[in-house]
Amino acid sequence: MNPAKITIFAPGLIGGSVALAATQAFPKTKISICTRRPESVPAIRTMLPQAEIGTSPSLASHADLVLLGSPPSALPELVRSILPFLSPTTLVTDVSSFKESVEKTIAPLLFGHARWIGSHPMAGSEHSGISAARADLFHQAPVILTPTAATSTDTLEQATSFWQALGARVLSMTPQLHDAQIARISHLPHLIATTLVLTAGSDSLPLAGSGYRDTTRIASGPAPLWTEILIGNQPELLASLKTFRTTFDQVTSALENKDASTLSKLLDQATHIRRTLPSP
Amino acid sequence: MNPAKITIFAPGLIGGSVALAATQAFPKTKISICTRRPESVPAIRTMLPQAEIGTSPSLASHADLVLLGSPPSALPELVRSILPFLSPTTLVTDVSSFKESVEKTIAPLLFGHARWIGSHPMAGSEHSGISAARADLFHQAPVILTPTAATSTDTLEQATSFWQALGARVLSMTPQLHDAQIARISHLPHLIATTLVLTAGSDSLPLAGSGYRDTTRIASGPAPLWTEILIGNQPELLASLKTFRTTFDQVTSALENKDASTLSKLLDQATHIRRTLPSP
Repeated sequence: MNPAKITIFAPGLIGGSVALAATQAFPKTKISICTRRPESVPAIRTMLPQAEIGTSPSLASHADLVLLGSPPSALPELVRSILPFLSPTTLVTDVSSFKESVEKTIAPLLFGHARWIGSHPMAGSEHSGISAARADLFHQAPVILTPTAATSTDTLEQATSFWQALGARVLSMTPQLHDAQIARISHLPHLIATTLVLTAGSDSLPLAGSGYRDTTRIASGPAPLWTEILIGNQPELLASLKTFRTTFDQVTSALENKDASTLSKLLDQATHIRRTLPSP
Repeated sequence: MNPAKITIFAPGLIGGSVALAATQAFPKTKISICTRRPESVPAIRTMLPQAEIGTSPSLASHADLVLLGSPPSALPELVRSILPFLSPTTLVTDVSSFKESVEKTIAPLLFGHARWIGSHPMAGSEHSGISAARADLFHQAPVILTPTAATSTDTLEQATSFWQALGARVLSMTPQLHDAQIARISHLPHLIATTLVLTAGSDSLPLAGSGYRDTTRIASGPAPLWTEILIGNQPELLASLKTFRTTFDQVTSALENKDASTLSKLLDQATHIRRTLPSP
């Protein structure tokens, strides 16, 4: 993909990082940024001095690629506002953490107005907002594309090529499969890290080593966004919580019985799985 | 503390790192390393070319400080083997992750032979063995000393000064309080990270981002050592698991009811606690 113009709406951590990374990856491309909040324009201008920056949805005009950085709940209104400025060749994508319900809402809105494919970059940090954006945020990060039967090969290929240019490792799967897998690998860890922090409380924090620090890092992520994500993927996440509880009961029972053999097998099994994760 | 000789027994990740850090912190001190395994002598020699290295417990002779790097289960035998080489002024300490039962076993063995205080450096990594040792492992890491009514002020002060010289942030508390707090802040996170890995399984690993990576890092630690640690602190860890389960049920119920207000409050509370953790 070699876009002449990319427009990024709602540039927070992810949208801002896309803007920074795209500026490096496509030096000849016009980068256009649209924020709803006029007060954030100066900060964006400092970070992206070459970009066109404004508050009007008309910034989507003539874009080859439109990236929607909003949380899922704000997407329908955002999409409606940009419809007049899209063309049937514009490729529109998002960065939502759950896909099936977003697909059901957004695909019909864009149908006939633009090409659409869902994206989920598995990159981020416990920080939020454009001030936390980094040009290398997607370097080696998985980005999951969620084509459906309605997605053309061209659309999938161009979206793949775009994210690859930003350094990402692109995977593709149905929105349904995405939601099931992401529940296990991202939403469950978030909820469990939160539960851990609440359980450990504040009193023991001075004793915390790098184990606690890493295990709970994501629990300091923005609560409103994560509430939306966790509830947005509720059915799949509940299924993961159920599996977690079964395993938790197994582990607890091994500990209650001081059953070193079973406990050791469980720890060993986890070690074995975790060590297959490729290094970053 | 300005020791003329330090002897380190069973140099793995922790003992090896103590040797490296002490070599830097006390350049005039003789560092002596004792391993039970003759085959590891060459690797230790490469890492610590200035040290005296051997396999005999007599290496403890004339040491001002003896550090026992063994897992708790191996401590009694190790301590018995070095008793003939200790003097009443020798300061002996360990690095065990649970303290009350170690205290009950080790303090009586050393009584009248040497001075004793338990240490627990909250530093480590998912890697083990001396090859993972680092001179800066204790830099800013909490080290918890566990004095009892039998511990002299001198002993506590010297142990404090020793770990501080290695860069650590030293805390002190009773073995009982240590075990309760460490259950919450270290042993519980380990068990939960393990449960998470087992729940998420292998299929979704290609989608894993930095959240999963950090949350589960400690689950790749050595299973035999962790089995011993978790069972060694079983009563306190079971209490933590019980609290965890209560909070887990609260979180699950909020999600089941799509109760965004409660879920958001829980996430916010965790964010608030987690953000009070000082940066490393």
